Amino acid sequence: MNNKKFTILGGDLRNVKLANLIAQEGNSVNIYGFKNAGFELGMDECPDLKDAIDDSDVIIGPIPCSNDNETINAQFNPDKIYIHDIFKIMNKNQLFIAGRISDKIAQLAQVCNVYSIDILQREEMAILNTIPTAEGAIQIAMEELPITLHDSDVLILGYGRIGKILAKMLNGIGANVYAEARKHSDLASIRSFGYNPVNINELSNFLHKMDVIINTIPSIVLGQDMLNLVRKDCLIIDLASKPGGVDFEKAKLLGLKAIWALSLPGKVAPVTAAKFIKDTVYNIIDELGV
Amino acid sequence: MNNKKFTILGGDLRNVKLANLIAQEGNSVNIYGFKNAGFELGMDECPDLKDAIDDSDVIIGPIPCSNDNETINAQFNPDKIYIHDIFKIMNKNQLFIAGRISDKIAQLAQVCNVYSIDILQREEMAILNTIPTAEGAIQIAMEELPITLHDSDVLILGYGRIGKILAKMLNGIGANVYAEARKHSDLASIRSFGYNPVNINELSNFLHKMDVIINTIPSIVLGQDMLNLVRKDCLIIDLASKPGGVDFEKAKLLGLKAIWALSLPGKVAPVTAAKFIKDTVYNIIDELGV
Amino acid sequence: MNNKKFTILGGDLRNVKLANLIAQEGNSVNIYGFKNAGFELGMDECPDLKDAIDDSDVIIGPIPCSNDNETINAQFNPDKIYIHDIFKIMNKNQLFIAGRISDKIAQLAQVCNVYSIDILQREEMAILNTIPTAEGAIQIAMEELPITLHDSDVLILGYGRIGKILAKMLNGIGANVYAEARKHSDLASIRSFGYNPVNINELSNFLHKMDVIINTIPSIVLGQDMLNLVRKDCLIIDLASKPGGVDFEKAKLLGLKAIWALSLPGKVAPVTAAKFIKDTVYNIIDELGV
Amino acid sequence: MNNKKFTILGGDLRNVKLANLIAQEGNSVNIYGFKNAGFELGMDECPDLKDAIDDSDVIIGPIPCSNDNETINAQFNPDKIYIHDIFKIMNKNQLFIAGRISDKIAQLAQVCNVYSIDILQREEMAILNTIPTAEGAIQIAMEELPITLHDSDVLILGYGRIGKILAKMLNGIGANVYAEARKHSDLASIRSFGYNPVNINELSNFLHKMDVIINTIPSIVLGQDMLNLVRKDCLIIDLASKPGGVDFEKAKLLGLKAIWALSLPGKVAPVTAAKFIKDTVYNIIDELGV
Repeated sequence: MNNKKFTILGGDLRNVKLANLIAQEGNSVNIYGFKNAGFELGMDECPDLKDAIDDSDVIIGPIPCSNDNETINAQFNPDKIYIHDIFKIMNKNQLFIAGRISDKIAQLAQVCNVYSIDILQREEMAILNTIPTAEGAIQIAMEELPITLHDSDVLILGYGRIGKILAKMLNGIGANVYAEARKHSDLASIRSFGYNPVNINELSNFLHKMDVIINTIPSIVLGQDMLNLVRKDCLIIDLASKPGGVDFEKAKLLGLKAIWALSLPGKVAPVTAAKFIKDTVYNIIDELGV
Repeated sequence: MNNKKFTILGGDLRNVKLANLIAQEGNSVNIYGFKNAGFELGMDECPDLKDAIDDSDVIIGPIPCSNDNETINAQFNPDKIYIHDIFKIMNKNQLFIAGRISDKIAQLAQVCNVYSIDILQREEMAILNTIPTAEGAIQIAMEELPITLHDSDVLILGYGRIGKILAKMLNGIGANVYAEARKHSDLASIRSFGYNPVNINELSNFLHKMDVIINTIPSIVLGQDMLNLVRKDCLIIDLASKPGGVDFEKAKLLGLKAIWALSLPGKVAPVTAAKFIKDTVYNIIDELGV
Repeated sequence: MNNKKFTILGGDLRNVKLANLIAQEGNSVNIYGFKNAGFELGMDECPDLKDAIDDSDVIIGPIPCSNDNETINAQFNPDKIYIHDIFKIMNKNQLFIAGRISDKIAQLAQVCNVYSIDILQREEMAILNTIPTAEGAIQIAMEELPITLHDSDVLILGYGRIGKILAKMLNGIGANVYAEARKHSDLASIRSFGYNPVNINELSNFLHKMDVIINTIPSIVLGQDMLNLVRKDCLIIDLASKPGGVDFEKAKLLGLKAIWALSLPGKVAPVTAAKFIKDTVYNIIDELGV
Repeated sequence: MNNKKFTILGGDLRNVKLANLIAQEGNSVNIYGFKNAGFELGMDECPDLKDAIDDSDVIIGPIPCSNDNETINAQFNPDKIYIHDIFKIMNKNQLFIAGRISDKIAQLAQVCNVYSIDILQREEMAILNTIPTAEGAIQIAMEELPITLHDSDVLILGYGRIGKILAKMLNGIGANVYAEARKHSDLASIRSFGYNPVNINELSNFLHKMDVIINTIPSIVLGQDMLNLVRKDCLIIDLASKPGGVDFEKAKLLGLKAIWALSLPGKVAPVTAAKFIKDTVYNIIDELGV
C-alpha cells in the first residue's frame, strides 16, 4: 500500500493508538475530537473539522460510530461532532470507515454521496477480535476463581469464532475443555481438536461437573432449569451480545456468580485492538484500490 | 440408541472392522461378501444375500459403493454382488447406507423404493476423516524426508477442513507452519491460531523457503511457474481429489518429489476409519429415528 | 491410604480449604486457630489446643510456619499459638508438617522429640506450586498490559521449574516465547520444545524486542545496564524470592514498570494450592508408612 | 566463531551432510574416507590422510567412532583407516571429536598427545537427539498401527529426556498421553504438563488400556508379568539402549508386537542429525576457544 492521508475522528483510546500506528508507518494523519484527552496524543489535533478532513483519503470514525445517530462517539471531546457536518465536508472520492453504522447513518451517507463502510461487518475484524475477547474471558476467570484454570473443567457454549479460539487458549493453559454444539459436524470438529464434545441434548448431564462455563451464544441457553444444575462455586461468563445466553436474574436468585462481559477488546487490550483495526482498514483500502 | 439389526455388505477392511465394532455394542450383525477374506472375520458369513438382508434394519455397503454402477465393491468376494439384487430384496422400512452413491445408483434405489444415504455426503464424516488424512500426510513426510518435521518449514495450501487439522498436528510436533489462504477472514483465522498466514498473492515469495508443501485445494495451485520456485529438496504432498493441485508432470521434469496421496483413512488407519463410519451411521439412525 | 486423624493448626485460607478437602475424603479432622475467620469454616473449631492435637496422627501447621520462631502464623486467630506449646503436647508417634521450618524450630522439635517435616522442601510440592505461580504471572501480565499476550514477545529469564511451565502456558495462549539460559543443555531443551533460546551472553540483544520479561532467577539479572535496554512499555514481572532478579530502584528511576510477585499460589488459587498441599501430605504419609 | 579448518573422517551419511553444512558456513573442509560413497559428496576427497589432517584445526571422526578399537567406522571407504595413523599425524594443537570414544581409544589419544572429545557425552547433543528419536518412534507407531495416534492411549515408560519430548509431540498430535515415573516430583511434573501420571507401583492397572507403549528405561520394565497384561493389539516400541526395557522373547511367545528401535536419529533424519552434530561441535570450539 502506498502512503495515504488519513483522518481519525473521535472514538476511544483505540482510535488514539490507531492514529499513532498509522502515522508510524509513514502515512499522513490528521486527528480531530480528542481535545480533552488529558494525555499525550503523540500528534497535534487539527483546529477545525474542515481542515482535518479536506485533503484526506480515508476518514476513520469511532467504533461504535454513534449512540444517537446524530453525533459521533467522542469521549475525549468537550463539543459534539455532528455526523451530518462530517458528511457535508466529505467528497465522493473519500472513504468513511467506522463501526456499527446504523441504517439511518448509512442513509445519510448515501444522501451526502459519501462512501461508507462498517468495519464491524468485516469478517476478518470479527475473527481478530476473538483474540482479545478470549484473553479477556480468561483474565476474568483467573481473577474470579480461587482455583487454577489448569486442570479445571471449563465448558464453552457454542463453537463458533469465539468458541474455537477460547478452546485453543484454555487448552493451552491446561484446562480440561468441553465444548457444546448442536450440529454433528461441529461436534466432530471439537473431537478432532481433542476437546470433549457436548451435544446440546446432553448438556444437562455436564453442567454439574463444571468449574467455569463461558457462553458465546446470543440466545438464552442457561435458563432456570439449566442454572439449577450448575454448582454454586462455578463461575459463569457470558460473552454473547444482547440478549446474551444467561438468565442473569435467575442466576442471582440461585446465588450463582454470572458476569456479562461485553466489548472486551477495547477494554483489555486497546493497543492490540487498534492494530487489528489498522490491519482491517488496510485490507479495505487494498480491496477498493483507493 | 436401542440395539438394531445390521447387515454389512462387501467393502474393504474397514467394513470388516465396522461389523465387529457394531456387534461389540450389542447389535445383531449379518455379514455378506467376505468369502475370500483369508483372515478371521470375527463372525460367520451369511450363506445367501436374502438371508443376510431380510430382517435387518440397516444395510451398509462399501465406501465407495461401486465402480461400475452395477456391482458393489467387494474385494474379499469371489462372486459379483449386484446392486439390483440388493435393492430387490430390501423393503421400504430398511435403510441403505454406502459411500459415493452415484446418480445412477440413487435412481435405481428410488425405483426399487429403497431409502439410500451417501455417508460421504455427511459433514461430520468428512471432518472425522481429516484426522487419519492428516496423520497419513505426516507419516509420508516423516518417511520421505531426511530431516525432522520439528523445526522444518511446512506450507499448507488451503485452510479448509483438512488444512485446519493438519496445521494443528504439524504445530503440535514442532513444525513451523505456514498456511495459505485467499480470504482475509481465513488469513485472520490462521493468525489467531498462531500459524504464519500466507496470502495467495504472495505465495511466490514463500515457496523457496519450504521443506514440505502439502496441498489440499482441488485445482492447480502449483503449476510450472510456482514449481520453478520450489527447492529441489522440498517434498510436495497432494491430498486433493481430482484434478489435484499439483502439475505432476512438470514437477517430475523439474526433478521435484511430488506424491499424490489419496484415500488415506482406509490405508493408514482402517480401524479408526471404521469407528468413524460407525459413529456417523449411528448419527444417521438417531436423526431418522429408524 | 487408610483414613487418619488430622489436626490443622492456624495458617491462611489454604489451611481452611485443606481441612475441608481432607475431611471430604473420610478422614477425621480437628481444626484450631481459626476463631476470627468470619466465614463458614465447614467444621467446628476445637475448644483447646490439647484436645485438638491429642489423638491425631498428623498435625499440619501453617505455610510458612512462623515469622518469629515462637508463634505460628495464624491470621484468623485473636490469640497467639506458641510452637513450644504444640510440641509439648505432641508425642513421638505424631507427625508435624508445616512450611519453611527454620533451624530454630527444627531444633525445638528435636528437643521435644517431635518428628517434623518441611513441606516446602518437597520437590513435588515445589513443582505443583509452579502451576498457580505461572497462572498468577499470566494474570498479572493480562491485567497490566494494553496488548494481548497472544503474539506478544515474552522473555523468561531462567529455565528451571517455573520457567518450563511458564513457557508452556504462554505458548499455549499464543505468545512468542523466548527463554534465557546459561547452559547449552538448557538451550537445547528450550529449542526442542519450540521456544526461542536466548544464551545469557546474548541477552542484551533481545531485551529491546520484548513486551514482557518474567524473571525466575534469584540473583540480579536485570541490573542498570540491562534495564537501560528495556523498552518503556515493557512489563517486568519478578517471580524470584529474595533478593529477586531485578534492581527495582533503578527500574523505577528509568520509568519502567516492574512488579515483584511473590507467594502467588496462596493469593491467586488458594483452593488449588490446598489440594497440592493435601497431595503432598499424603505422599509423605505413604512414604513414612505412618 | 571465526572460520576454521575442519577435517571430516569417515562415518555415515551424517558426516557427509556435516561436511557440507560446515563448508556452507564459510569454513574450509577436508574430507577423507568416502571413496565408495557412490553419490555426489559436494566436495572432493583428499588423496591421502596426511594431507587431509595436516593443517586442520578440528578433526571430526565417526559416530560411533569405532567397533574394533583399531579402525574408524567408515562405511563408504574400501580401505581401513587406522586410528593410530590418525593420531600419529595429529599434533597437540588439533582437536579430535568423535562419538563413543572407548577407554582404549582415549588412552591411545593420550599416549599420542591428542586432545579428544566424545560428542555423545555432551548433554546438549543428547537432548537434541531426542527430537529425531521421538519423531522416529512416532513414525514407527504410525506405520505399524491400524489406528490413528489421535485419540489413542499411549504410555511412555520413563520421564527423562526422551520421555519429555515424546510426551509433548504425542500430545501435539492428539494422543492421550500417559507417562510412567517412580519419583513423586516426576509425577508432579507430568501432571503439570497435562499428561496422565502413572506411578510405577500402579503400572499394572494401566497396561491393559494402552494402544501403544514406548519404553525409554534401560532396564527390564516389561517382563513376563507385565507383558501378560498388555493387549494383543498393543504396539510396544523400545527406545532404550542395551539391555532395553522389554523381554522380547517373552513378548514374542505371547504374540505381542515389540520393536527395538535404536539409533533413530541417523536413520530417520540424517540431515537434522548432522545439523545437531555441527551445533555441538561449534559449542565445543567456543568453550575451548580453539
